[in-house]
Amino acid sequence: MALGVAMLTVAVAAAMAGGGPRPALMPWPSSIEMGAGELVVGPAFRIALTGRGGGIVERAARRLEARLARQTGLVLPSPLAPAGEPALEVRCDGPGKPLPHLGMDEGYTLTVTPEGAVLQAAEPWGVLRGMETFLQLVVPGSSTAFRAPAVVIRDEPRFPWRGLMLDSSRHFMPLDAVKRTLDGMAAVKLDVFHWHLTDDQGFRVESRRYPGLHRMGSDGLFYTQEQVKDVIAYAADRGIRVVPEFDIPGHTTSWLVSHPELAAMPGPYQIERRWGIMDPALDPSKEEVYRLLDGFLGEMAALFPDPFLHIGGDEVNGKHWDASERVTAFKKQEDLKDNHDLQAYFNQRVSKIVRGHRKQMMGWDEVLHPGLPKDTVIHSWRGQESLGAAAKQGFRGILSNGYYIDLVWSADRHYLTDPWDKGVDQLPEADRARILGGEATMWSEFTSPETVDSRIWPRTAAIAERLWSPRALRDLDDMYVRLEATSRWLEWTSLDHRAGYTRMLQRLAGPRYRELRRLADVVEPLENYQRGDTGDYTQQTPLVRLVDAARPESDAARGFSRLVEAMLADPARQAGREGVRARLQEWQGLEASLRPLLEERALLWEAVPLAAEASALAAAGLEALGFLEQGTAAPASWWAERAQLLDGPKKPEHALEVAFRPAVRRLMEAARSSEPLSQ
Amino acid sequence: MALGVAMLTVAVAAAMAGGGPRPALMPWPSSIEMGAGELVVGPAFRIALTGRGGGIVERAARRLEARLARQTGLVLPSPLAPAGEPALEVRCDGPGKPLPHLGMDEGYTLTVTPEGAVLQAAEPWGVLRGMETFLQLVVPGSSTAFRAPAVVIRDEPRFPWRGLMLDSSRHFMPLDAVKRTLDGMAAVKLDVFHWHLTDDQGFRVESRRYPGLHRMGSDGLFYTQEQVKDVIAYAADRGIRVVPEFDIPGHTTSWLVSHPELAAMPGPYQIERRWGIMDPALDPSKEEVYRLLDGFLGEMAALFPDPFLHIGGDEVNGKHWDASERVTAFKKQEDLKDNHDLQAYFNQRVSKIVRGHRKQMMGWDEVLHPGLPKDTVIHSWRGQESLGAAAKQGFRGILSNGYYIDLVWSADRHYLTDPWDKGVDQLPEADRARILGGEATMWSEFTSPETVDSRIWPRTAAIAERLWSPRALRDLDDMYVRLEATSRWLEWTSLDHRAGYTRMLQRLAGPRYRELRRLADVVEPLENYQRGDTGDYTQQTPLVRLVDAARPESDAARGFSRLVEAMLADPARQAGREGVRARLQEWQGLEASLRPLLEERALLWEAVPLAAEASALAAAGLEALGFLEQGTAAPASWWAERAQLLDGPKKPEHALEVAFRPAVRRLMEAARSSEPLSQ
Repeated sequence: MALGVAMLTVAVAAAMAGGGPRPALMPWPSSIEMGAGELVVGPAFRIALTGRGGGIVERAARRLEARLARQTGLVLPSPLAPAGEPALEVRCDGPGKPLPHLGMDEGYTLTVTPEGAVLQAAEPWGVLRGMETFLQLVVPGSSTAFRAPAVVIRDEPRFPWRGLMLDSSRHFMPLDAVKRTLDGMAAVKLDVFHWHLTDDQGFRVESRRYPGLHRMGSDGLFYTQEQVKDVIAYAADRGIRVVPEFDIPGHTTSWLVSHPELAAMPGPYQIERRWGIMDPALDPSKEEVYRLLDGFLGEMAALFPDPFLHIGGDEVNGKHWDASERVTAFKKQEDLKDNHDLQAYFNQRVSKIVRGHRKQMMGWDEVLHPGLPKDTVIHSWRGQESLGAAAKQGFRGILSNGYYIDLVWSADRHYLTDPWDKGVDQLPEADRARILGGEATMWSEFTSPETVDSRIWPRTAAIAERLWSPRALRDLDDMYVRLEATSRWLEWTSLDHRAGYTRMLQRLAGPRYRELRRLADVVEPLENYQRGDTGDYTQQTPLVRLVDAARPESDAARGFSRLVEAMLADPARQAGREGVRARLQEWQGLEASLRPLLEERALLWEAVPLAAEASALAAAGLEALGFLEQGTAAPASWWAERAQLLDGPKKPEHALEVAFRPAVRRLMEAARSSEPLSQ
Repeated sequence: MALGVAMLTVAVAAAMAGGGPRPALMPWPSSIEMGAGELVVGPAFRIALTGRGGGIVERAARRLEARLARQTGLVLPSPLAPAGEPALEVRCDGPGKPLPHLGMDEGYTLTVTPEGAVLQAAEPWGVLRGMETFLQLVVPGSSTAFRAPAVVIRDEPRFPWRGLMLDSSRHFMPLDAVKRTLDGMAAVKLDVFHWHLTDDQGFRVESRRYPGLHRMGSDGLFYTQEQVKDVIAYAADRGIRVVPEFDIPGHTTSWLVSHPELAAMPGPYQIERRWGIMDPALDPSKEEVYRLLDGFLGEMAALFPDPFLHIGGDEVNGKHWDASERVTAFKKQEDLKDNHDLQAYFNQRVSKIVRGHRKQMMGWDEVLHPGLPKDTVIHSWRGQESLGAAAKQGFRGILSNGYYIDLVWSADRHYLTDPWDKGVDQLPEADRARILGGEATMWSEFTSPETVDSRIWPRTAAIAERLWSPRALRDLDDMYVRLEATSRWLEWTSLDHRAGYTRMLQRLAGPRYRELRRLADVVEPLENYQRGDTGDYTQQTPLVRLVDAARPESDAARGFSRLVEAMLADPARQAGREGVRARLQEWQGLEASLRPLLEERALLWEAVPLAAEASALAAAGLEALGFLEQGTAAPASWWAERAQLLDGPKKPEHALEVAFRPAVRRLMEAARSSEPLSQ
């Protein structure tokens, strides 16, 4: 096929030559050149595979057809497609290694012209990434067809390790939730599924060698080895590695239910139901601990083909070690001056075991110790400085600090976190190259199989872009436009993050869920781990409240903030003022209109004070708007009376906050400013 | 467990003694008595199986836990459930026959008290039905639990044959769509899945004896025999029989692709892509036709365990028979005076083949002929008279006329159709008993796997109630309240009929889908088969337009009609007048506010005149309201000018109609009435 568009590598953000709107790609490619015209994607759509891609590419082509059919409503594969020119030709140079691996070649070139599209890649991994880009390009066109704009994209990732960690222990995630997650990961070009399989609250993988571990440590909620193999194959087909984590020596209560003899303190132990850092730990002085770990990790090393094995190693509080005479004596005997040294001893023993099974060990910051072999990978929850220090010592590392999606931050905050921040970009090239990428972490204290999609998506797409795309990309407005489109596009996979919102509101409010939505649209879950302070949570607490339905980030509140900023930036304070007023007026009415519903439904009682807060804040915002309109500074007495609203309630039992509070603060602060306003 | 509530059989609609709101059950049970208090459904929820239900009951209990977990967010089965009193005890007297069958005992008694619930049934089929009732009873309660009201329900179906026909030929329905459909059927207590597997447009079942049939007749879109067995087992676990249909001698183009020698006219044949009644037909004069049918139907008789086998038999236009010299000669030779006689001859031959494989034959009205064996079941698309006539001749029958859900009627119209209407209730008891029930029919010319859920649900729940519940039930307001709750509840199964609406609007309008929704909420697809007149449809036409997203029935328009009727019933014409005005004002603005979006998106161009119609109708409605307020009759000139709006457009290419048109007509007719109004 003759290419009508010259291929040019161009700078990132300014890349949009040619006509047509900017396509909503995420992650944004490293190079993109818009051409003229568009490719029609209609009932005659056909894919042709050329080159030597093998089974992964063939299966990917079938999935692409099925997803394109879902996205467009076309009947694909079409029995009527002509035998001639294919709409999409996929040229893969060779099959590469059979499994995805660190450093695999994920580069591809995608050329779309009105005559057809060509996706070219050296290996199947690049084909997989390019197919997602192609799907993102296809948008509604004429009344019987869809279209993709003419474009030349040359793309490759910035970092080789772009992961998502899923905690299947605290809340067990059924197989279909795991597969949905993998579908979403593949869609945004993530390539490592870090599977947190054991913790105090559940031992989630079948061990044939030590069956007590999963039988007594999981309430029957675990993955069989066949299911694990199924997940690995499913992930591999999508170019995603699976790195398992078995968190030791802390976070091991669920192990100790069947094996109390491994613990520092005598049992019996029960599966932990609460959240937090627990006291139980393996006893590093016991040889039987290492014998079992050798057996169990050996079994897992054979089950999981990836060369990396994560041993956790975080958050050992040392209480049981300190309480044990045996451990105390052991420390003395081995000349280990504190628990940090003791854990280093433990890690070195475990490191030898892991090496013995031909795996490279990985652990959280706490495992870092100069004595460890240099192929150990440090997984940093502490931050870039910690990662930089490890890199200088010769260790490879990945970043998760800043990517903790369970903290329910807004997407922009994750997006602006870069593995090279905080001086890492000043490191010598050789050291910096040891920083392999990062991982979003989905801890599941407050996430159930029902809510996991909305907790991961769409925000993780922004992290995926940070790890794939050029570092210079930092335009938040542009990011949010593409994130919204990507969020909608992700629902054409099996993900449920948007539809689930409505369903959960329907559970809470029955036929009146649209009324409730007016409130739900402008609230956000409390950030960080504040929710844990608002109630007595355990593994059995239903996660069906308004806070569980609410999205991590309120689009309405973000839009309102933009409006307020634009208005305040206008010297006359008029730009968009009526829009600001209309929203505040609507929100001022929330309490009065919602109170009957909230009081009728017991699950919503807790939202009564929340609606009251929202209405009071909106009222204060309207007052501030009035002062701004008059061009007079608000009196100090008014500020004194209203300012407490800005702090939020002291004990928000509903675990939610009013998302437009910061924008009202801006309005109120502008209103009390003594600066004269130009009208 | 001691039952705190006396059991009483009470009249249906007046059944609500005791406190609390009427539970949103559908189908409504034959007897219900509300008690005092409620059962808490919380983290300690546990099911106990007593009696001898066997595997079907055990698997149903696991599914009930999983669905209750989804419905409530509870972690079930709960590892913390106490060993004592179960929340739900399921007592099944015996396992019954291994497979669901015509006339199976589906009765059950469900007793809920604050201390616990007991579900009692003689056979697993009753347990399955009662479990759905239990799930429908569970609604949100206090902030950490759900609740079921105290109640005694004794229930059993009115008709033994309550079916849904799914056309998998015109649009192939993938396995997951079939299973979702079965989940929904089980939820509303339907018990027959009639699987329309072959038609002109596709031969959808694997034949190992004649593999050309599915290989050349299906574009590769067919069910393997393993998949068919999987569906049968899935259905059986839900108390649903699977009755396959192989439509002959017409509707057979897809057979003739591989077997042109069976046709009345020489081939070659290709899979039909268009809709309508086609000319090709099997040639009744050829012995090889009966040989193949004997082989194929024998194979299918072994694959499908149900004793009924549907041979279609509808819509043979006879053109190819008339054109064939061989057929003409055969008719003469066999003394068959017309094509009706010829088809009767064919049916008698087929009937012998079906009997030879120990099945009872079933066919559409056209097969009815006195010479057929009396165990033949007549499936009536013609109506109750036809069914009654067959019953008088000794044939059993089921009704589908009035239950054609592909005609996109409103639910009430289906609901008010009763198999005993049009004189059937006057038949002698013995004749009437031959009318076994009915089936909703989901023909799939205009239904894809993406839209099938919204075309079947929730309206089919109203038909399910008609076939299960006492005949006296006819309160439409009450039905619609329960239908709305049932629709939301059905989304806790895997069905997608509500979420899919939003997703389809998002495809059409991108980030501005909520604007589009304002229009989509007040339009309905054209009823009956008018859509086919609005475009050149084939099997390959994408079904992704506004008409595909739009719901068969507009709740907003129905609510508006109620408002208008209430206002007009008020002598002062004031009741609810402001509500009427507010809605009309909103709709009047549709065109102006939506035009930029509609013109920007090519897939929405066709909706521009639709929005204009809606706005013009709303404007006319506001004018009518003005006359009504003034208490003066509208001038004839006004009526003459506006009346054409009430006819709708001559050629609605968008295949949609404005759903509030009838209510505007009511307003306009009231406004022109010369009758003086009391103000």
